[in-house]
Amino acid sequence: MTTLLDVARLADVTTATVSNVLRDRGRFSARTRARVLEAVAQLQYRPHLTARALAEGRPPTIALMVSSIANPFYPEFALAAERAARRDGYFLIICNTNDDADVGQAYFDQIGGTLSEGILIMNSALDVDALYRGHGDGSPVVLCMWERPDRAPTLPCVAVDFFLAGRLAAAHLLELGHRRIGAIVGSARHGIHAARYEGFCQTLREADIAGFADDVRFTDDSIQGGHGAAQSLLRANPALTAIFATNDLPALGAVYAALDMGRAVPDALSVIGITDIRLARESRPALTTIAVPTAAAADLAVALLRELIRDADMTDSTLRVAPAPRLVQRDTTGIRRA
Amino acid sequence: MTTLLDVARLADVTTATVSNVLRDRGRFSARTRARVLEAVAQLQYRPHLTARALAEGRPPTIALMVSSIANPFYPEFALAAERAARRDGYFLIICNTNDDADVGQAYFDQIGGTLSEGILIMNSALDVDALYRGHGDGSPVVLCMWERPDRAPTLPCVAVDFFLAGRLAAAHLLELGHRRIGAIVGSARHGIHAARYEGFCQTLREADIAGFADDVRFTDDSIQGGHGAAQSLLRANPALTAIFATNDLPALGAVYAALDMGRAVPDALSVIGITDIRLARESRPALTTIAVPTAAAADLAVALLRELIRDADMTDSTLRVAPAPRLVQRDTTGIRRA
Repeated sequence: MTTLLDVARLADVTTATVSNVLRDRGRFSARTRARVLEAVAQLQYRPHLTARALAEGRPPTIALMVSSIANPFYPEFALAAERAARRDGYFLIICNTNDDADVGQAYFDQIGGTLSEGILIMNSALDVDALYRGHGDGSPVVLCMWERPDRAPTLPCVAVDFFLAGRLAAAHLLELGHRRIGAIVGSARHGIHAARYEGFCQTLREADIAGFADDVRFTDDSIQGGHGAAQSLLRANPALTAIFATNDLPALGAVYAALDMGRAVPDALSVIGITDIRLARESRPALTTIAVPTAAAADLAVALLRELIRDADMTDSTLRVAPAPRLVQRDTTGIRRA
Repeated sequence: MTTLLDVARLADVTTATVSNVLRDRGRFSARTRARVLEAVAQLQYRPHLTARALAEGRPPTIALMVSSIANPFYPEFALAAERAARRDGYFLIICNTNDDADVGQAYFDQIGGTLSEGILIMNSALDVDALYRGHGDGSPVVLCMWERPDRAPTLPCVAVDFFLAGRLAAAHLLELGHRRIGAIVGSARHGIHAARYEGFCQTLREADIAGFADDVRFTDDSIQGGHGAAQSLLRANPALTAIFATNDLPALGAVYAALDMGRAVPDALSVIGITDIRLARESRPALTTIAVPTAAAADLAVALLRELIRDADMTDSTLRVAPAPRLVQRDTTGIRRA
């Protein structure tokens, strides 16, 4: 296997120079660059992660801050981000802030520059103001899966249209004939699921469905949270024929609550979520959901972060919008029965 | 950029001494300490995380290497380890090796010392030989949740008696009257679930149950893996009245496969898993399982790692055994029907 040293020898430079050219950083002449790239091409050198890391004495690392490692969505995003990072020769380290703003801030301050070359941030309980103030080192930061493409901050970010996801969920239930629809929001009213609920409400309003304001519960983004919220909704209003949840975990909780209460799904209650985590397709009954492009968003986020690492003064737009969410109909939604 | 070597040269000491002074450990005179700190100041040296963290009063970091971040058991362990670390003022960073030995080795070589003060290792596709050879820096390492307390390596480790877990699962099914029992092993035959399957087999042998050798499938440690394996088992031997799976995810897959095949759980098929992940209690039907002490093992692992960080020459035993697994009966096991 061709090594970094082989390339350095052929190009008559140090391994550090080869490394700098390949990572496009540090100082070298155009001539040196050309010589190195020629040697790379001639030897068909593929900078292997391990070899490169060892040659440099330290691996190129990016950090991913997540708010809740125990919520399966975040590991799924982490896996996708890691695949994207690995393709580019980066290691990914994951920091769980556990929805604690102080912990998030401490990781943010500490990770920048000392542990990583750049930071991906996923709902890490840091407010955007804190991010604007930045951290000591100034390593680049990308917000992942911002929920409103039309209201993006000027910080670099990848947006997913979760407002549209809420609209699509409402439209699906309306199309199946449902008119009495409960909602379970897996965050506080103005929390991270707000855009999804707003999209849902807007589509119901456009269909002249009134009176749904009482049929909403704000809860934890978990199966347990959805289970309790669904029990509460169905006891307060047994006439509900469908439940929309802003995420798959509370949607699964709603399905399990209905089963526990003796209501068949979907015959006596339709349930729809958002995201399409792996469990949505693996659980029984398999969950109807609005799939968001997790892997595509991870790819975009890693690519944007790499651009910012290479060019701190990047003047291009740093908003990237991921492909639109789409309906995946499975076994928890059906036509409203009389 | 100023390096540790530059500081060592200016202070006329070894790099190890610089490192020790900055980490405030090992032996050195007050005079040596002053000379090193002066050189650090003069060269404006920015040491790596750990040294800097201590120099600046920031919390130090330990690393957790896991084999599969998308398997919910690992995030649950990570969360428990993080809580334990946080109580002691440590930050935890998580590295996912994704069952790739090369990636695992690269993380292992690079994390030690540069990114963290010590490493917790969870089934990270590193073989024990590689761990014995160690990594460049020599930071302490603790193996978490070793499966056989009676066959522990001399490396520091926390053991959980998974052989006993397999025995308990078999004993529960026998007590319910089951005699034709299939097994789903979520690893290769001699892989990380081997001890669980051996425990299961030994208890069946002791009960004079023969012929179970054909009724086993080795598969992925996932819902999907368990689903496929259960379909295969039930088609090959419809007389099976129970299935033991070595982990909760394949056990859930077996439950869902039975439902898909029209077999009621537990009336027409009992299913039991091992671990008691959160989904085991939240899914429907809720899963009977052998609970292992995840949080206790994480606490023991972090405590042992801290001892090793403080005292590299520790002569006490470095094997810690977590509390015994225990049966948690829920809704997927029942008395064998005629």
